[in-house]
Amino acid sequence: MDVTSRYSISARRMSRSIIRELLKLTNKKGLVSFAGGLPYPGTFPAEELATITEGVLKEEPGLALQYSPTEGLPSLRENLRSFLEKRGFNCSTKELIVTSASQQSLDLVAKIFLDRGDLVVTENPSYLGAMSAFRSYGARFLAIEMDERGMRTAFLRERLAELKKTAGTGNEYYQNMPKFIYTIPDFQNPTGITMSMERRQELMEIAEEFDMIIVEDVPYRWLRYSGEEYPMLSAMDRQNRVIGLFTFSKILSPGMRLGWLTADERIMDKLVQAKQATDLCTSAFSQSIAERFISGGQIDVRIKRNIDIYRKKRDLMVGELKKNLEGLKGVEINEPSGGLFLWISLPEDIDTDELFIEAIDRNVAYVIGSAFFPNGGGHNTMRLNFSYPSEEEIVTGISRLSSLIRDRMEGRG
Amino acid sequence: MDVTSRYSISARRMSRSIIRELLKLTNKKGLVSFAGGLPYPGTFPAEELATITEGVLKEEPGLALQYSPTEGLPSLRENLRSFLEKRGFNCSTKELIVTSASQQSLDLVAKIFLDRGDLVVTENPSYLGAMSAFRSYGARFLAIEMDERGMRTAFLRERLAELKKTAGTGNEYYQNMPKFIYTIPDFQNPTGITMSMERRQELMEIAEEFDMIIVEDVPYRWLRYSGEEYPMLSAMDRQNRVIGLFTFSKILSPGMRLGWLTADERIMDKLVQAKQATDLCTSAFSQSIAERFISGGQIDVRIKRNIDIYRKKRDLMVGELKKNLEGLKGVEINEPSGGLFLWISLPEDIDTDELFIEAIDRNVAYVIGSAFFPNGGGHNTMRLNFSYPSEEEIVTGISRLSSLIRDRMEGRG
Repeated sequence: MDVTSRYSISARRMSRSIIRELLKLTNKKGLVSFAGGLPYPGTFPAEELATITEGVLKEEPGLALQYSPTEGLPSLRENLRSFLEKRGFNCSTKELIVTSASQQSLDLVAKIFLDRGDLVVTENPSYLGAMSAFRSYGARFLAIEMDERGMRTAFLRERLAELKKTAGTGNEYYQNMPKFIYTIPDFQNPTGITMSMERRQELMEIAEEFDMIIVEDVPYRWLRYSGEEYPMLSAMDRQNRVIGLFTFSKILSPGMRLGWLTADERIMDKLVQAKQATDLCTSAFSQSIAERFISGGQIDVRIKRNIDIYRKKRDLMVGELKKNLEGLKGVEINEPSGGLFLWISLPEDIDTDELFIEAIDRNVAYVIGSAFFPNGGGHNTMRLNFSYPSEEEIVTGISRLSSLIRDRMEGRG
Repeated sequence: MDVTSRYSISARRMSRSIIRELLKLTNKKGLVSFAGGLPYPGTFPAEELATITEGVLKEEPGLALQYSPTEGLPSLRENLRSFLEKRGFNCSTKELIVTSASQQSLDLVAKIFLDRGDLVVTENPSYLGAMSAFRSYGARFLAIEMDERGMRTAFLRERLAELKKTAGTGNEYYQNMPKFIYTIPDFQNPTGITMSMERRQELMEIAEEFDMIIVEDVPYRWLRYSGEEYPMLSAMDRQNRVIGLFTFSKILSPGMRLGWLTADERIMDKLVQAKQATDLCTSAFSQSIAERFISGGQIDVRIKRNIDIYRKKRDLMVGELKKNLEGLKGVEINEPSGGLFLWISLPEDIDTDELFIEAIDRNVAYVIGSAFFPNGGGHNTMRLNFSYPSEEEIVTGISRLSSLIRDRMEGRG
């Protein structure tokens, strides 16, 4: 039976993610992998969750095991609203829904805004999962360069001004301009870079100037190990143009598949319709458990503990890299002030795609940086994850990776 | 800020589901609702789940609380394969993936096959959730009439033969013919009708003749209260043209958001790519719990218990309807041999959309049948759910509904 001739246009364009294929190579005994993006299992509050689950199943099985409203359980939505309020962002529960984690939020946003050929602004590089969600609706990317202060908003303004010239007016304008600006302002994936206060302000101004929507993805925001905290774009927003994507994956457990999303009430109405067609509702079981985890205050305790665990790992990885790569010209290590990832740039002539195979031979893995550039480029970069490996693995793996880089740069690799 | 001019074409066409809006009216004190489609909370195995969850969180928290493969946990996939094998359908684990319940399966199937304007064959009437998933990708419907033996396959053959005349050949043929045939062969939603053996055979022949894919949705199959069991289309399939959609929602709990899907390996590859862009993976927490629930044999015990509970409710509702509506000409009650729903046809001149408001006044609710007809019609029909209401509610509610119908038919309502 011929199957491919039946596929939709978007299905024909889909392919298995490069990272996914490369990750298969890392299932090798003795290999230290910095390639994943997993939280450290030691951060999972298994005992607390067991106690909470017992209570949920004893006290409200009819709620936790039943279908639930598409918007999420009202009690959880209220708790999430209050979680955000304590952290400087006020919204109403009507502007907040529960989702089956941030990948679903990305899919829903794409579903309601994107038609084939539509433009989306992203940072360059950007999060792979977001790009594949947007691509599955046929998006093209206007990828804006970054520096150590985040997206280079001056470039964004220039590019939008150019586009505006031929975008027309009214409906046509909105359909021809990028549908939204996608950004991860805090400890970005993959670069670990945090957007400065000035850039945040400029981004908000640009959004007003060109009447654009911003999608702010903040999966790592609560995991800050050093540096200054800047307000969320969602909190700076005075015109309801920011859609906020939040997740439990990095502060409770990715295995619960639980996130939430904030948006203008009118946009929310459309997102709820889209969610209904996509999965009816998010697990009431996970929701009931998460609600008690927040209302009981365990979430705050956990976040603090996780920060301590991850700060150590970051410090160790940065320290080992600096020690091992000292004196190599053209090697830049981006030290993140939070999150899960660290970014390395090598001299232009070193191709990390090529280097990857050799790294596997030497029992260490990273993600090739080029995978994160929507329109190509970045062939001299790599992403390292420091949250999942043990301290011992970090020392061993960085030593292997550093000697590989050193050998290659000194013409021996 | 103008939001609507930014929406995608499919988002502009989305609307809140009629059922959802009507259900809001049923939140009235003292009202008996037959309008939902919820399992009876008394069927939820809360205690067993509490014990299992404790074990999961003690013995494998690093698995249950972590990201998991997009295809699902290998151990659960193997258990599901064996669950199906025991029930007469052999497939390999490579042909089986875990999904976040059947609404997601419907969304994924739609995503990989449907472009705007594509045709999908459905029964007439059909499941609302499937129609909204397909519609969200721009599907049009070729809805085939049913009788008491299911989809009228002779009509289907005629319609396909007509379409074939102008469908062209090669790629064009597959793009112009309906992308797949969607069917719920067992205790269909909304009619409760089961497809006869002859019709199943004819449907398989038609699929071969026109080289079509069948999507078989069997959420209720394991809940049979009487009558003969026919093989699944998936089991009759010799050419890998059936995609099977299965769910835990009616045999364990809808609150876990867990289902599974079987398909040809090549199609599966595409579905996995689509799932990755949609939600990365299904909850490992729910999966780990479900796996133990199957491997420990509790699922078989539970299904038997649920059958006993639901058979009683069905018998009661059917009995009350027959008693109360006896002698009314043109009233047809379809007695289902399984599932959750019962279907009533009234004489042509009685409009159940209109009648609904009066029913709410009399403190009883149903779903208007017209909601289930993708291309209109069915204005003299209604769907009743017997799984959720208590026995007392069934007696009271059917008495109210029957006197309303009687009054209307005798010119008093």
